[in-house]
Formats: sequence, structure tokens, C-alpha cells
Amino acid sequence: MGASRAIRVGTPVEALETPVLVIDIDAMERNLARMMSILAGTGLSLRPHLKTAKSPALAQMMIRAGAVGVCCAKLSEAEVMANAGITDILLTSEVAGVGKFERLVGLAGWVPNFKAVVDNAHAIRAIAGLSRAQGVTTKLLIEVDVNTNRSGVVSAQEALALADLIAETEGVELLGVHGYAGHAQIRPMETREPVNEAAMTTLEEAVELLREHNHSIPIVTGGGTGTSELDAARGVLNELQAGSFLLMDTAYRDAGVPFELALRCRSTIISRPAPDRAVCDAGQKTMSHDAGPPEVEGRPGVTYRRGSDEHGSLIVDPALLDRPLEVGDVISLVPSHICTTVNLHDVFVGARNNVVEAVWPIEARGHIW
Amino acid sequence: MGASRAIRVGTPVEALETPVLVIDIDAMERNLARMMSILAGTGLSLRPHLKTAKSPALAQMMIRAGAVGVCCAKLSEAEVMANAGITDILLTSEVAGVGKFERLVGLAGWVPNFKAVVDNAHAIRAIAGLSRAQGVTTKLLIEVDVNTNRSGVVSAQEALALADLIAETEGVELLGVHGYAGHAQIRPMETREPVNEAAMTTLEEAVELLREHNHSIPIVTGGGTGTSELDAARGVLNELQAGSFLLMDTAYRDAGVPFELALRCRSTIISRPAPDRAVCDAGQKTMSHDAGPPEVEGRPGVTYRRGSDEHGSLIVDPALLDRPLEVGDVISLVPSHICTTVNLHDVFVGARNNVVEAVWPIEARGHIW
Repeated sequence: MGASRAIRVGTPVEALETPVLVIDIDAMERNLARMMSILAGTGLSLRPHLKTAKSPALAQMMIRAGAVGVCCAKLSEAEVMANAGITDILLTSEVAGVGKFERLVGLAGWVPNFKAVVDNAHAIRAIAGLSRAQGVTTKLLIEVDVNTNRSGVVSAQEALALADLIAETEGVELLGVHGYAGHAQIRPMETREPVNEAAMTTLEEAVELLREHNHSIPIVTGGGTGTSELDAARGVLNELQAGSFLLMDTAYRDAGVPFELALRCRSTIISRPAPDRAVCDAGQKTMSHDAGPPEVEGRPGVTYRRGSDEHGSLIVDPALLDRPLEVGDVISLVPSHICTTVNLHDVFVGARNNVVEAVWPIEARGHIW
Repeated sequence: MGASRAIRVGTPVEALETPVLVIDIDAMERNLARMMSILAGTGLSLRPHLKTAKSPALAQMMIRAGAVGVCCAKLSEAEVMANAGITDILLTSEVAGVGKFERLVGLAGWVPNFKAVVDNAHAIRAIAGLSRAQGVTTKLLIEVDVNTNRSGVVSAQEALALADLIAETEGVELLGVHGYAGHAQIRPMETREPVNEAAMTTLEEAVELLREHNHSIPIVTGGGTGTSELDAARGVLNELQAGSFLLMDTAYRDAGVPFELALRCRSTIISRPAPDRAVCDAGQKTMSHDAGPPEVEGRPGVTYRRGSDEHGSLIVDPALLDRPLEVGDVISLVPSHICTTVNLHDVFVGARNNVVEAVWPIEARGHIW
């Protein structure tokens, strides 16, 4: 559907039409190795969140490196990954509605280690009823709100009530708890540590109460790129849901996490109307702006000012240019928020030594349902 | 590619899985009729911009209602529309790079009334060279910056220099000027009128200078949803590039344009963790936030606070609720910015009397290249 875009392996990166997302495979592999070394021997396993990369190829690469499974944000994203042969999938958002519950139980039926989070009795009862009808047992985790003010039960007592309900209900099985401290991830370390500590203490209290009441809680899952080292040291979680570490963005770089920028969007200068201005072909439909505009790399004197739908407006300081900036020049843009940027694209180009080595479809792009 | 989503004609809207974009076809048809009546007899024709709807079906519907052709923001968007049989297409963004110039001349070769904007001599020479090699004449419009500080030549003299270059260069033909006052569109009427007037005066000066120098300027194109009535009265433009009027959003509604909201995103409540909070399944990957969060319609006491990637966090004022808000309830969200929201989705559901009448692929979704 739509117009086709052929990108050939072996093409020099400089020859690619723009805009195009290019992954530096070496840098990506270093990020993955770095994450595995941070977690090695700590009891914390990697369960990468695929709402970031949205690509089965990259998911399988992380599993080959030692990830125990993956996280997905939406059922349709989980369906993409299951269809690609991934067998250990945690759905980290609640769902509701009969069609959604049916699809969730469908995955529980044929994907060996599929599991989903819940935070309310309605969902537990609906999932259990469909599971019984289907002859399957659906694995569930209870989401605990670790001070994010979003989804999840807001007290250990509520978690216990749901755990008791799951235990007494045929068709569902309690596998653990999920508590994602999203508000702790992108902060200066001075506040990241205490905010994450408070979150993990909340989660720990819930886990302890559930275990005191004889609930087996094999999985305690949460965390992300920003708290990976803290979570490895803290010992509450046994699964880390990091996703951004693989490709990275300027928000996480500015927060000082130990991973390198591994993805750029190449964009062409299409207009150079005045000495202090230029326009490139990457606007807000190409680079998300929810964490600010993207950053221009390697062109001193050139700054991304703001994106329209399809135009990127650049400020040029002619005194700082190391060479003329001309119509047809290609610049490298680094995303400010990798998750929402990747979701705008259909393919990653993977390159090594500036030659295309792979074209990876972003198959779960736009899979919001 | 990806997981499949079957939506059947005849389904009641209430039974659709969420999130899903639903067009009120009656409202859309009224918007189109209203636009045609605003323009009737004024000498201003409609050339709708498809960077908004991105759907050949809706494009053809506007052409059947009297639009003289369409605008596209990207070559790949134009390729989608050309492939759907649309023969009068204006590309409103400059392009650069040999691959892009080749594709542009390719369209000029087989699409009868394809034309593109330029704002620099480099592009004119490159397009002309490829056009001669291909044996075609490519139709061009000169983009004039009407105080947007984005692309376009910044003076009438520069426009004249490019017009002279086009006139003396074999392979290209001057068809008019393009000046889009994007900065005038979404403003209170007190400032919209003077800002648009200044823009149209700038454009008028360029047109007059070109005509004084014996350049034929059959097309003077620009304008949008916000300035449609002003542009119809002013008489500089003979083509209006409005796009948002068809489906609308809260930004344009708040600016007081004479069109009605015709698109909603249906979203399900997936978590109800506290009396004053709820979470729905539409976050920033479903509803763009660059013009603010979406608006909850028809549920007093429920406000969309902020979107995460995949969650919409809602504030609930229990005292204002007219009925309980529960997990599984479906709410209607109105987009704040229709262009960037539509670009996140693969299909529109068209409904009349709350029954699905059509499923329209958003074929140019993500076509940024």
C-alpha cells in the first residue's frame, strides 16, 4: 500500500534518499553489550520494551544477547512479535473491552509465555471467563503504581485483594508484579536516585505483603534505561524493561546514562532562503518534538529551531560554519525522544562503516490497537 | 506486514475496537459544501492540501465536489495520489538531491498536470537538466516567503530572477507563484486579518513585478482553512490550499473558523485507579500533542491531562460526572492538530448514523520521503 521505497543493502549511506533513519550497528551492539554487562551477575534480567524499537529483528537480536523475553505496550504490538516467533511476551498496559480481552486470551492460548498486566477486578474476571471458555490459563501480573500517578493499584492492600481474586479464580494465574517508574527515568542523577528509591520501596512493600499471604511472585518487573544501574544495585526487580538504551536519544544522553547515540535521521537541505536560515526535509512528521526539537550533529553553526508538519526550520550562524551549507547538503539529526520518533517511520536502515548492511521493517509502527 | 485489523462495514461504531479514528461523514460533507459555498463566485478555487487527510478516497471526494486539483507536501505523498489517478498535483515543498529530482521529473513525465514549487536556482537547473534528458517540460511555481520565515524567496526581485531563469531554461516552464501564510491560519480574527493582509500584499507585489516583466502567472496559490474567507475576499490568490477544514480540530475550532468537528478518536478506559483519575488507551502515538492534548467530548468532569507514549492520563472530577466512568467505557477524543494526528493512523472509519459506511486507508500515512 502506498508508494514504494527501495533501499538496497550495499548502498553507501551518503547515497540514501532522505529522510531516513540510520542505525549505527556497531554503536547499537556496544549499547547492548554494555547493558548486558551492567546486569551481569546482579540477578536482574533484561526484558526490553519494544514500544521503542518496534522491530522483530531488533527484538530477536536482544534475545540472542540474553534478554529473557520482551515487553509490548499494545496487543497489536504483541501480535507482531508473537508472529515473529517470540514466545515470552509481557503486555505492560491494561486492556479493556470484549474484543481486546478475546485477543489477549488468544495470545495466551498459543504463545507459550505470554502474560499481561492487570490493575482491576473487572479485567481479571473478564479474562478468566474467556480463558475458561477457551480451555487456557492466562498468566497475569498485577500493576502497582509506583508514584507515577498513571495506571496501577495505589496500595499494597489493593494489590493483595487482586492477588487473592486471581488465586481463587479459575482460568488465570498470578505470575508477579509490574511497577514501572517512568517518572524516574529521565532526570539528573541527584533526583533520579531518590525518586527511584521511593518507587522501588513502594513496589517492595507490595511484593512483601503478597508473599506474606502466600502468593508466589516469581516476576518483579519494571525499570528502564535511566534507572538500569540503580535497579541492578537495588535488588527489588528481577526484570528490567529498558528499551531506549539500544538506540538512545538526546533526552537520555543529557540525563547522563552510559549508552551512546546509535540512531540518526538523515535529512536534506531543501531551501536556503537567507544567510541565517535554512530548511530541511524533516519536520514533526519525521522527528517527534514532544521532548524538544532534534539536534543537528557535526555541523557547527546549524541549529534546529522548530518543525512544521514537513519542514525543519534551521537557524544558521554563518560565522560558525566550517563549510558552506547549501541546498542538497545532507545533515544528521539526533532524535530527542526515540520512541515517538521511531513510530513515525516504516524502516530502519542498519549501517556499518557507512554502508547499508540491513533494512529492518518497523513492523509494529502505528500498532496502537 | 504487521498484525491485521479487520473493520467491517455495517458495524455499529460502539462495537469498534479502540483506538480508532472515526469520521462523521455527514459533518465532513457539510464542511466540504460549506467551503465550496464560501469560494463560489469569488474566483478562488479549492486545491486542498492532502498532508492533512493523506487519503486518495477523500482527495477524490473533494475533486468530485469541485476542487481543481490537490497539494502534496512530499514526493511520496504525490506518488500515492498520482497512483490513485489524480492528475492535477502541486508539490508544495522544495526537494533536493538527485534521487528526488529524478522522481519529481518522473511525475512530470506521466502525470498530466503535475507541478512543483522551487525557491532556488540550483533546483531549477537540476530539474531542467533531467527534464531535457527525459524529453519532458516540468511545470514550476516560485515559492515566495510571505513572512513565514521558512522556505521561499524573500523578495520580489529574487522571484523575478528565478522567473527569468525558468523562462530562459529549456525543460522547465513557469506556471505561477506559491505563498502559504501558515503563520496567519490559527489566530484570533483580530490578528489573523492584518497578518494575512501583510502576507497577501507581499505575494501581490511579487506577482505584479513578474507580470510587469512579461511573465505569465496563471496560478497564484496559497491560503488555508483559517484564511479561507479572507482570501476569497482579498482577490490575490486564485487557488486555496486548505486541508484541515474537511475534518477539523480544536485549534481551528478555537480560532473560530466556520467548519465543524468531523473526526473523533474513540478510546477505551483501561484503568480507573482512583476517584479522580482514569487512563485511556490513546497516548501520544495515537493523538498528537504538538498543539496541546486532545479534548474529551460528551463526558462532563473528564479531562485529558497528558499523554505518555501509549497511555492517556485523564483527570476526573467526580462531582461533575453525569454517570460513573468505568473500565471498558469508550470515550470520544477530538484532536488538537488534525494533520499530525492522522499521520499516526493507517485507516479512517467513515460512519453515518453511528454505523460504519466506509474504511478508508490513509495511504500516504508516513510518506515523508
